Amino acid sequence: MIVIIKPEARQEHIDSLITNLQKTYPVEIQAVKGAHCTILGLVGDTSHIDPSSIENRDIVDKVSRVSEPFKKANRSFHPDNTIIEVMGRQIGGEEIAIIAGPCSVESEEQIISIAKDVKESGATFLRGGAYKPRTSPYAFQGLEEDGLELLKIAQEKTGLPIVTEIMYPHTIDKFVEDVDIIQVGARNMQNFGLLKELGRIDKPVLLKRGLASTIEEWLMSAEYIMAGGNENVILCERGIRTFESYTRNTLDLSAIPAVKKLSHLPVIIDPSHATGLSWMVEPLACAAIAAGADGLIIEVHNDPTAALCDGPQSLTPNKFDKLMTKMKKYAEVEGRTIITNRG
Amino acid sequence: MIVIIKPEARQEHIDSLITNLQKTYPVEIQAVKGAHCTILGLVGDTSHIDPSSIENRDIVDKVSRVSEPFKKANRSFHPDNTIIEVMGRQIGGEEIAIIAGPCSVESEEQIISIAKDVKESGATFLRGGAYKPRTSPYAFQGLEEDGLELLKIAQEKTGLPIVTEIMYPHTIDKFVEDVDIIQVGARNMQNFGLLKELGRIDKPVLLKRGLASTIEEWLMSAEYIMAGGNENVILCERGIRTFESYTRNTLDLSAIPAVKKLSHLPVIIDPSHATGLSWMVEPLACAAIAAGADGLIIEVHNDPTAALCDGPQSLTPNKFDKLMTKMKKYAEVEGRTIITNRG
Amino acid sequence: MIVIIKPEARQEHIDSLITNLQKTYPVEIQAVKGAHCTILGLVGDTSHIDPSSIENRDIVDKVSRVSEPFKKANRSFHPDNTIIEVMGRQIGGEEIAIIAGPCSVESEEQIISIAKDVKESGATFLRGGAYKPRTSPYAFQGLEEDGLELLKIAQEKTGLPIVTEIMYPHTIDKFVEDVDIIQVGARNMQNFGLLKELGRIDKPVLLKRGLASTIEEWLMSAEYIMAGGNENVILCERGIRTFESYTRNTLDLSAIPAVKKLSHLPVIIDPSHATGLSWMVEPLACAAIAAGADGLIIEVHNDPTAALCDGPQSLTPNKFDKLMTKMKKYAEVEGRTIITNRG
Amino acid sequence: MIVIIKPEARQEHIDSLITNLQKTYPVEIQAVKGAHCTILGLVGDTSHIDPSSIENRDIVDKVSRVSEPFKKANRSFHPDNTIIEVMGRQIGGEEIAIIAGPCSVESEEQIISIAKDVKESGATFLRGGAYKPRTSPYAFQGLEEDGLELLKIAQEKTGLPIVTEIMYPHTIDKFVEDVDIIQVGARNMQNFGLLKELGRIDKPVLLKRGLASTIEEWLMSAEYIMAGGNENVILCERGIRTFESYTRNTLDLSAIPAVKKLSHLPVIIDPSHATGLSWMVEPLACAAIAAGADGLIIEVHNDPTAALCDGPQSLTPNKFDKLMTKMKKYAEVEGRTIITNRG
Repeated sequence: MIVIIKPEARQEHIDSLITNLQKTYPVEIQAVKGAHCTILGLVGDTSHIDPSSIENRDIVDKVSRVSEPFKKANRSFHPDNTIIEVMGRQIGGEEIAIIAGPCSVESEEQIISIAKDVKESGATFLRGGAYKPRTSPYAFQGLEEDGLELLKIAQEKTGLPIVTEIMYPHTIDKFVEDVDIIQVGARNMQNFGLLKELGRIDKPVLLKRGLASTIEEWLMSAEYIMAGGNENVILCERGIRTFESYTRNTLDLSAIPAVKKLSHLPVIIDPSHATGLSWMVEPLACAAIAAGADGLIIEVHNDPTAALCDGPQSLTPNKFDKLMTKMKKYAEVEGRTIITNRG
Repeated sequence: MIVIIKPEARQEHIDSLITNLQKTYPVEIQAVKGAHCTILGLVGDTSHIDPSSIENRDIVDKVSRVSEPFKKANRSFHPDNTIIEVMGRQIGGEEIAIIAGPCSVESEEQIISIAKDVKESGATFLRGGAYKPRTSPYAFQGLEEDGLELLKIAQEKTGLPIVTEIMYPHTIDKFVEDVDIIQVGARNMQNFGLLKELGRIDKPVLLKRGLASTIEEWLMSAEYIMAGGNENVILCERGIRTFESYTRNTLDLSAIPAVKKLSHLPVIIDPSHATGLSWMVEPLACAAIAAGADGLIIEVHNDPTAALCDGPQSLTPNKFDKLMTKMKKYAEVEGRTIITNRG
Repeated sequence: MIVIIKPEARQEHIDSLITNLQKTYPVEIQAVKGAHCTILGLVGDTSHIDPSSIENRDIVDKVSRVSEPFKKANRSFHPDNTIIEVMGRQIGGEEIAIIAGPCSVESEEQIISIAKDVKESGATFLRGGAYKPRTSPYAFQGLEEDGLELLKIAQEKTGLPIVTEIMYPHTIDKFVEDVDIIQVGARNMQNFGLLKELGRIDKPVLLKRGLASTIEEWLMSAEYIMAGGNENVILCERGIRTFESYTRNTLDLSAIPAVKKLSHLPVIIDPSHATGLSWMVEPLACAAIAAGADGLIIEVHNDPTAALCDGPQSLTPNKFDKLMTKMKKYAEVEGRTIITNRG
Repeated sequence: MIVIIKPEARQEHIDSLITNLQKTYPVEIQAVKGAHCTILGLVGDTSHIDPSSIENRDIVDKVSRVSEPFKKANRSFHPDNTIIEVMGRQIGGEEIAIIAGPCSVESEEQIISIAKDVKESGATFLRGGAYKPRTSPYAFQGLEEDGLELLKIAQEKTGLPIVTEIMYPHTIDKFVEDVDIIQVGARNMQNFGLLKELGRIDKPVLLKRGLASTIEEWLMSAEYIMAGGNENVILCERGIRTFESYTRNTLDLSAIPAVKKLSHLPVIIDPSHATGLSWMVEPLACAAIAAGADGLIIEVHNDPTAALCDGPQSLTPNKFDKLMTKMKKYAEVEGRTIITNRG
């Protein structure tokens, strides 16, 4: 950590700051005194230091980090990729995880039918919303507990592990019991109460990136879960908010190589929510694989025009099947695997 | 609501869509048939219609709203300003509400000393964080319950109503009992579970705008609380996330006239968090009054360089006192009131 | 085009607006009168109508377009892909165009050496900056005319067509003479004076997307060039400005399918400038091909650490060669061609 | 300037970098060697150093500036406010400059009528567009040279100095002759060819901030003009592009105190273009004065509904007159002056 001292600071105040920092933090401090300003280098473990607690001193101009503020999520301290195992499947290993299913669970018939279809095409996980975060209080909020029950039935019938979003901390026990991967939605990425609860369990957590969150903040939210003891975190990029309104959000595929460099955690891509346009799913899903993604989460609905939410971004099972065939070829170029029934 | 039909749609499908819409929603439908496309006008109460449920039909090109999707927060249905009364003070009336205090409650001595100082200068409410949302799990998380106790003591000693942030739904009963205005932070603006809980009580809620939330989404979050039955919502603009990094966020003062036009709810401004720079608080607080704000929330700390969080953006009590004198003059030009002890 | 009339408008004013619109524009007007508002549908060729000239009437609430405001760049009126031919190579056809070279031309030795290297690896065009747009007046501004001369020499020695950026309208004749594809930089995307000049010539123009330009504005800038008579426009996405600062800009790969749907013009990707990080070029270049890009523009420098500008984002010739081998495999999956000397 | 060396760098490479930097730049270099990394402090005049030319070395992790990259625009080297004099009026002094007039010059009658009206209300400058930058090639492009002639007539009749936008470098001589303040539009803020030309003259230049330009980049564009010899630069904030679409752009009033701290140049505000909504002009113009603006540029049209461009954001002369009365009161609170005929 580098502390830049204001040019006008007096030497006695600088000395007193140095003494104070050495007392407060387990760091060694080295000073460069130049014609225009003095710079302090804080050497040692600085991940627990809050820069603003230093920046608020009168004589400090700015503080800049040299090392990242996250530790458990940091590849420097954990060079190998984290591979998360769920019911015999892996996320983060050679196989590319394909999580598919409808935006919302609507009925037993619907979820089982889609689950069978996507499994047939080679999906390795089933997604489906039971609790739905909606901008309007008047919009369909999901089947809630009943939705979880239907997902469990679909899991039993197909053997596909299920992925679904948690919204309320008080439902966590039920989620631990019923769900295979617990999803945290973009709007809850900094719901720190929820993150702390998820740190206390050992179920895998799929953590979506917030609409206006930097990659560093996203990794800090993963750190919240990991600091609590749950290191099974899967990151999911789903588009960030920008000035462009042609797509619902702007899918940031550069987040894949960035996360791979900074962290050992797996990273997957959600092209359906990012763009909100079903015809963009194919090119961007293929692009995600080429950019190194560990998996994809894709909306599939057997009747997108009658879906209770997010219809325009869903693929039909037939289009999903064709996409799987194409993605399989891209996976091969990357030296990775997607297993479809078509061979 | 306007539904634009794709040029290639067949008449029988258009007719079937019209029949279906008329069955599903309490609206009258009128069609314009042109050379290039057909347009449907949905006339009536469309606030409960989810546009995506129409947009996902094959023959629909796009759907655009004519009226806003919020109702209880909408000025069209409630032309007079909402005035919220708290312990004899008003927010949204002639008097400009001044909410001042430290980022975090740190000790009894600290909070009482600051409370007395800001009251002396004319503040009408005391703010102070007990539960702190922090990006890093390793940063100071607030005194939590103990912080609420200290705020209560400060309230008793000074008579100032207290404003503090809620983070966890399970603490709501304690907040209802101890707190005068319950704040929802920017990161929780779309924590719908929390919003629903706040709809069930009748304490005033100060709802901060999310970092990447549009004005419409912010009003929809207010609508969540109001739809539950709690109409005491105060909106607070605290900067949005943009590409500019000189300030922590970009304070959007045009949100004031926008909210005033769209809604009857009071709107206040937080220049301290928006900019993160204490020397910007004065010009932007005055600007907020000139733009029509109903109040301000300002960080004041008796020793900003030793504050446990957000020091660089806090004013000293002395600077706050000078700011009050200046704001008072601006309030007068606006025909509004700030009462300071200096007359 | 849809014109939504304010609810309070009087019938006589609506009638007078209709008469006025019919006189001014070659359109047919149809009105829907509902309980809450009246809506006018303007049917016919509306691409030349400026919506704000209608929106500024007292009785008009808002105007929304049904069809796009661009015509010559519009796929609706030109369903087949535009293929641009330059010295026997194609952009927009089956072959993927690979434009490679240094950020700046620095010396004859440098540009010839890099040109030979990239040709050897299979590049089909040589890029190199002669006139450099730099944020600081004190930074290296390029070799200017001398740079153009060196590019010409490199073109003669290798047969690679050259791509370089124009900055000043007065240099256009020289560019037409010396350059094979004239590049318009992101900062000049709405330099309408320059665009008009480029409409008068028939050299291909590579039009970079502005840092804060929507896809529609980008296509409108292409329309400026095409409206002047030059239909040889190649679009180039190079990252947009967002709140994320880990990468220099955020590469928007969803622009590829968007442009392909809206327009018939070829679209290429610049991963080097988008990210500013050489180690991100490989994953994002492969992703661009998978997303359907017609080409790539990639910075290659024989000594990136000594480059006069933009070193950190350049690949060495050796890394570029490996990238070509990988991209070739992705192109094959897409059913497209990249020809490298390695087979 | 601080250079952070990668942890894995070998000492001999660090030494060789130090030697190389000392040879290349007029700076003294001091090194801090810590357990995890080495940091170099470059002390002296670093404003001419391009950080990327250092950052591209293999052993360098990152480079961070301590001092700003602009010099002539920098308040550190020029503590007093720059006051620009134009025909007896001042911009940057005690008096607040009020620049008013139509978006476009449309006819002699129109411009003279508006000029008289705004002068009567107390405006000190007349604005009016002759060359108009329009997104669409099919929209009205301004009266061009004829527009300049009409502005001259209006200037002669009213004595108001005229402010109008330049678009093409080749028109600069005509602008120097006819115009009192030459405006550079937001889309041309980084049209470096134009900026260089403006550096060679001594007319005041009103430099609008680009839609996606940081405050630092804006000051660097001012530096381009000043480095050429023309120090008469007035900065104008006109809204930045964000995700919010309720207003056309987001007016960034925190840019006023930021510019005042970083630079000695005057800064004015354009609320008309920033919001695109005439009813927002009053609150935001008053807010700008409260935030410390040196002036305002406001669109006034005698018949906004018939304006050839930007009608919805124009005030009528009558509303402008009322606004002047209100702004005058705010100016007084700030200890500044606006002179209106109403006293």
